Amino acid sequence: MLDARWQRPPFDVVRAAHAELQVTDLEAARHFYVDLLGLVVTEATTDALYLRGYEERVHHSLVLRQMRNQTRVEDPRTPAGAATGAVPAAAAAAAPEAAPEAVPAAVHLAYRVAREEDLDRLAAFFQERGCPLQWLDPGDEPGQGRAVRVQDPLGFPVEFFCAMEPAERLLQRFDRYRGAHVLRLDHFNLHVADVQAAYDHYKALGFRCSEYTATDPPGPEEKLWAAWMYRKPNVHDVALMNGDGPRLHHLGFWVSDTQSVLRACDIVAAAGRADAIERGPGRHGLSNAFFVYLRDPDGHRIELYTCDYYTGDPDFEPIRWSVNDPRRGTFWGHAAPASWFEESSRVLDLDGRLVPVEPAKLSERPQTVT
Amino acid sequence: MLDARWQRPPFDVVRAAHAELQVTDLEAARHFYVDLLGLVVTEATTDALYLRGYEERVHHSLVLRQMRNQTRVEDPRTPAGAATGAVPAAAAAAAPEAAPEAVPAAVHLAYRVAREEDLDRLAAFFQERGCPLQWLDPGDEPGQGRAVRVQDPLGFPVEFFCAMEPAERLLQRFDRYRGAHVLRLDHFNLHVADVQAAYDHYKALGFRCSEYTATDPPGPEEKLWAAWMYRKPNVHDVALMNGDGPRLHHLGFWVSDTQSVLRACDIVAAAGRADAIERGPGRHGLSNAFFVYLRDPDGHRIELYTCDYYTGDPDFEPIRWSVNDPRRGTFWGHAAPASWFEESSRVLDLDGRLVPVEPAKLSERPQTVT
Amino acid sequence: MLDARWQRPPFDVVRAAHAELQVTDLEAARHFYVDLLGLVVTEATTDALYLRGYEERVHHSLVLRQMRNQTRVEDPRTPAGAATGAVPAAAAAAAPEAAPEAVPAAVHLAYRVAREEDLDRLAAFFQERGCPLQWLDPGDEPGQGRAVRVQDPLGFPVEFFCAMEPAERLLQRFDRYRGAHVLRLDHFNLHVADVQAAYDHYKALGFRCSEYTATDPPGPEEKLWAAWMYRKPNVHDVALMNGDGPRLHHLGFWVSDTQSVLRACDIVAAAGRADAIERGPGRHGLSNAFFVYLRDPDGHRIELYTCDYYTGDPDFEPIRWSVNDPRRGTFWGHAAPASWFEESSRVLDLDGRLVPVEPAKLSERPQTVT
Amino acid sequence: MLDARWQRPPFDVVRAAHAELQVTDLEAARHFYVDLLGLVVTEATTDALYLRGYEERVHHSLVLRQMRNQTRVEDPRTPAGAATGAVPAAAAAAAPEAAPEAVPAAVHLAYRVAREEDLDRLAAFFQERGCPLQWLDPGDEPGQGRAVRVQDPLGFPVEFFCAMEPAERLLQRFDRYRGAHVLRLDHFNLHVADVQAAYDHYKALGFRCSEYTATDPPGPEEKLWAAWMYRKPNVHDVALMNGDGPRLHHLGFWVSDTQSVLRACDIVAAAGRADAIERGPGRHGLSNAFFVYLRDPDGHRIELYTCDYYTGDPDFEPIRWSVNDPRRGTFWGHAAPASWFEESSRVLDLDGRLVPVEPAKLSERPQTVT
Repeated sequence: MLDARWQRPPFDVVRAAHAELQVTDLEAARHFYVDLLGLVVTEATTDALYLRGYEERVHHSLVLRQMRNQTRVEDPRTPAGAATGAVPAAAAAAAPEAAPEAVPAAVHLAYRVAREEDLDRLAAFFQERGCPLQWLDPGDEPGQGRAVRVQDPLGFPVEFFCAMEPAERLLQRFDRYRGAHVLRLDHFNLHVADVQAAYDHYKALGFRCSEYTATDPPGPEEKLWAAWMYRKPNVHDVALMNGDGPRLHHLGFWVSDTQSVLRACDIVAAAGRADAIERGPGRHGLSNAFFVYLRDPDGHRIELYTCDYYTGDPDFEPIRWSVNDPRRGTFWGHAAPASWFEESSRVLDLDGRLVPVEPAKLSERPQTVT
Repeated sequence: MLDARWQRPPFDVVRAAHAELQVTDLEAARHFYVDLLGLVVTEATTDALYLRGYEERVHHSLVLRQMRNQTRVEDPRTPAGAATGAVPAAAAAAAPEAAPEAVPAAVHLAYRVAREEDLDRLAAFFQERGCPLQWLDPGDEPGQGRAVRVQDPLGFPVEFFCAMEPAERLLQRFDRYRGAHVLRLDHFNLHVADVQAAYDHYKALGFRCSEYTATDPPGPEEKLWAAWMYRKPNVHDVALMNGDGPRLHHLGFWVSDTQSVLRACDIVAAAGRADAIERGPGRHGLSNAFFVYLRDPDGHRIELYTCDYYTGDPDFEPIRWSVNDPRRGTFWGHAAPASWFEESSRVLDLDGRLVPVEPAKLSERPQTVT
Repeated sequence: MLDARWQRPPFDVVRAAHAELQVTDLEAARHFYVDLLGLVVTEATTDALYLRGYEERVHHSLVLRQMRNQTRVEDPRTPAGAATGAVPAAAAAAAPEAAPEAVPAAVHLAYRVAREEDLDRLAAFFQERGCPLQWLDPGDEPGQGRAVRVQDPLGFPVEFFCAMEPAERLLQRFDRYRGAHVLRLDHFNLHVADVQAAYDHYKALGFRCSEYTATDPPGPEEKLWAAWMYRKPNVHDVALMNGDGPRLHHLGFWVSDTQSVLRACDIVAAAGRADAIERGPGRHGLSNAFFVYLRDPDGHRIELYTCDYYTGDPDFEPIRWSVNDPRRGTFWGHAAPASWFEESSRVLDLDGRLVPVEPAKLSERPQTVT
Repeated sequence: MLDARWQRPPFDVVRAAHAELQVTDLEAARHFYVDLLGLVVTEATTDALYLRGYEERVHHSLVLRQMRNQTRVEDPRTPAGAATGAVPAAAAAAAPEAAPEAVPAAVHLAYRVAREEDLDRLAAFFQERGCPLQWLDPGDEPGQGRAVRVQDPLGFPVEFFCAMEPAERLLQRFDRYRGAHVLRLDHFNLHVADVQAAYDHYKALGFRCSEYTATDPPGPEEKLWAAWMYRKPNVHDVALMNGDGPRLHHLGFWVSDTQSVLRACDIVAAAGRADAIERGPGRHGLSNAFFVYLRDPDGHRIELYTCDYYTGDPDFEPIRWSVNDPRRGTFWGHAAPASWFEESSRVLDLDGRLVPVEPAKLSERPQTVT
């Protein structure tokens, strides 16, 4: 379970910073993220879009990359039958034998660090653990300085970087605000097969825990079901949830108020995409956030998130929730749909192949799952 | 179906004005309506509360009346088994044989008229149709002038009145605002067995239609499934929905903004009454209203309602929705729970007995009903 | 002072419906109303724009007309020096000798009526009062049916019409919402030299009074300083304020919530037009509205307005405010700038000439005017 | 001017944590802070109130202390004439010769640190600088652990502490929310005579700078007019503004949204205290915050503050504003009242005497000061 000591490793991870998603149709993805949600395009290449929120002073917090369909059939690992079309992220989870390139997936998740030398120390940390590792030179990822990518012990493709090219901050360009008025990336939420191991890993990286879910009954036998971990002092930079993993459950973007969440629903529905609204809007018990979950055209899940709280005090005590408390998920008592518990985006390894998914270690399901 | 001519009867119904609900536990009801929703108490008697919203300049828009439990067992019509306790409004609908006094119910629904003489004209109107009728002297209903009550052709106990004692308007006493910041009663929503007949009746009373739901396919064979009818120029004073009737589906109260709806959910959930949140919050396709439906401790349904639109132009054309269009109910695509379609409050006749319920004339169910 | 009897003339004015403004630079005006405030263009001609709000089902609620500069110098009444450029509306008020066409001005204010025959009855009403009058055939004003224009006894160019061509209602096209999310025209506010006479005139037209301002001390000697008059049942369709007149003080547009008002300020300021924000945002004591006043590029004043209340009950009593009560103007106590009290748009007569301005009958100034 | 190096002293100040204000009438102060603004009482003694916001898990973020009137005349330093009554904070600033105890004042401002040993290191830091210093045992300040108080080089009474007794977090007790829904203390704003010296001091304490104001023209001769400094990663924990000092300009409390700010204005005005609204509501250019400034019954200034942004990235560059840019103060262009620039609360030294005020080093006034 939880480890009350706050660990202080020799590197300083600042916050969750950006993610790269592989999509099957870049134009459809642009429509969703730019036209409907209002993310701003910093740079567009033939096969990728680099996006940011209105508050962000950096080159990108979200990269959308067009899946390279033409290379699929040439891949000897690809069964012929799988080449006929892209598989939605959710379906892919149930079909791990599909060709790596044939599914939408998360390419990498990136954390920012405080100092350049933190990158070397993090590289050492992961090498000690036997993790595959790649160095990126400045510009290998457009707009970004030197970076290191690892396949972390949980199986996720994680990047650390310190420097990023500045971009114009549009926080006060209200005349350019569109859509959900997304301000910045806030967090990653991950499906992991072993939450306790994932918690221990992030603890070792210097993350603290704000809230967690545990099995009933409370006591020495209880198991960690999910944990919300942070470096910047709000509820989380990364959430770890019990489920078949490694998979990316969602990216959380910060908006300034509940109105932005409601407006996003209105806009998405008005544009004929009400089906994109998977869960909410509502109030989370855990985190107190006001939220809505949307699914992009490839099934990648996005949370619009606001109204959590400050966690930076030295004596902050993690808040425990029972996995069977329905208010944990939705303070107002609404059940989340089964898809929300079951579907997640596959992740790629450093060579661009799908990382195999292992079944969740805790097999019982919360009573609140319908 | 619809009758395009706007009828101008010799009386002027101004708006939906108030309702009286019979409750099984007046203290529990007070907690819900006053402490949680923030309605203001104008007058309290031993067995009734007279409430109003912050904007209302009149004595009451909602009367809560304690059910007289002590008289139940003495009632020869009461089967012994039914006397042990009150039956929730919803269950009562399925048990029409229960004792009249043993269930929560709607005692009467009241419309305000423009002139005293309208009351006499309305009395004549209903007498021509053979409806049971009662005259009330000023003060028979506290705070109210002369009034006439009828059991209308649809089976509802309907009251008309012109004069009501003023009460202090608290619109700008923001220091006294509590709960959902309810401003005023907006409308009644009724389950009626024959929507076409109910539409024709309200049309004869001078109501216009803003929006309606019809069966598929559109054309000469289509049937009216529901109709939103108004006298004051917003979407409705009364909605008529296909269902076992006569039953009161809900009372709609106006709040000033979406924040009031969200705050109500937060408050109700914080007070341990998340179960009271039945549907929403969300955006209705039909009416464009932002809404939440709550169930009071007796199961009476309350809607908090805002953001509809102006309907007073002479050429306003009713808007048609297909009963199978999911955006009709919830613009964002959420399904409403089955309880919302099936459960309603029974109504009393002028002698205080439960009005028998007839089955809905249209038996097919919309595809959107889960 | 007030006349407590509610007059019922033989015609039915429904509401304030649209206005036509003469502007000096149509492109600048388009930028302000369309790009910044988000009004929707129904029709654009070489010298006019026909605009509506998102809720409006009609062709236009605002017409912007390019001032015909080329005709100015040919006008014998124009002093040579005045021909070099347009004069801001405010300055024009102080320079009544300027050429008629050389200033921004209100061309006409239009009310909608319930029935075609109301137009004939209104024509008779104004002819009895010796007012200049013009009939318009359908289409003379694009999108509009038969109409009658009069120069009313107060000197304003007022139009009455019944039919208008429908336009697509965009209420639920949230994906197209921009700017202040203006929903519909709500009211006109007029500077009149004799408020009592203006009140009596609108009373004769069937308008009721919701709130009014009177001089101190209260009693038989008090004078009417301002009156808010309505046909549709909210606070007003027209406000009459003591001042040099006839002049148009502002057009009030309805927005759905306080957020829309704040967003408009943010947008206008972000676009480098913070100078357009003349007063507010704030809460009016009188009307309870949440408001902001903006000045368009020609100085025409626009109010974004929300949160007033229902006034349709038969016993509604007008609310009195003392002209010296600072909460009347701004509930929060802020003083309005002098420009707000003094500056207004000139109005044209039926021949397109500036109507001369007469000084306000009440010369004392409220203590709240800085 | 600014020092681009981010200093890392051997102690870790976490954030601005609480303040203690001396008030002349504790009941009046309770009405303002508890009844109107909605702060929660953790503990009340005969002469003090310990308050917190809904989010705060600690004993207090604001202490209100009743001024001890009875001791005033016994003080040999008190001129007899000054003993007759309390002097408003603002007036006191202009009357430094008044008796120390006769004025409302700030008793201390407290920062929280990450570890107990930081207190010792901070004590050493201040002793090296020759600052008067006091140690407090646990409980000397109710609810608080060991603490050190210093009179810092700028003349302010500053406290550092690590441990504080927990109090129930009410973040999700929405049924108990009242008033402005204040969530937590956010920052202090100080009038200092020498902004450059104050900036250098806070820099040495490990604070970073988010935004600053400098004199025109930009260049080597420019002077620092004001600086916003932070430890927690939002815009500030402390702001340093040019002015007669040391004086406390205001305490900033965090609210969750713009609605809370507007609601506070409505409540304060409804309670007859519109005079408490000194400036705003509005949008700051500097910080992007949506704000309102209120004056408590003693003239202490409170800001309700929301919508600033994240500043924790390693390459965050301070944003420069010209002291003559009107959008710096109010993005929407409104002028701030002179009182806002001139009036501030006096501060006490560690013995409870008023600290003398020195004139601002920069004497020119911004053009935006009216």
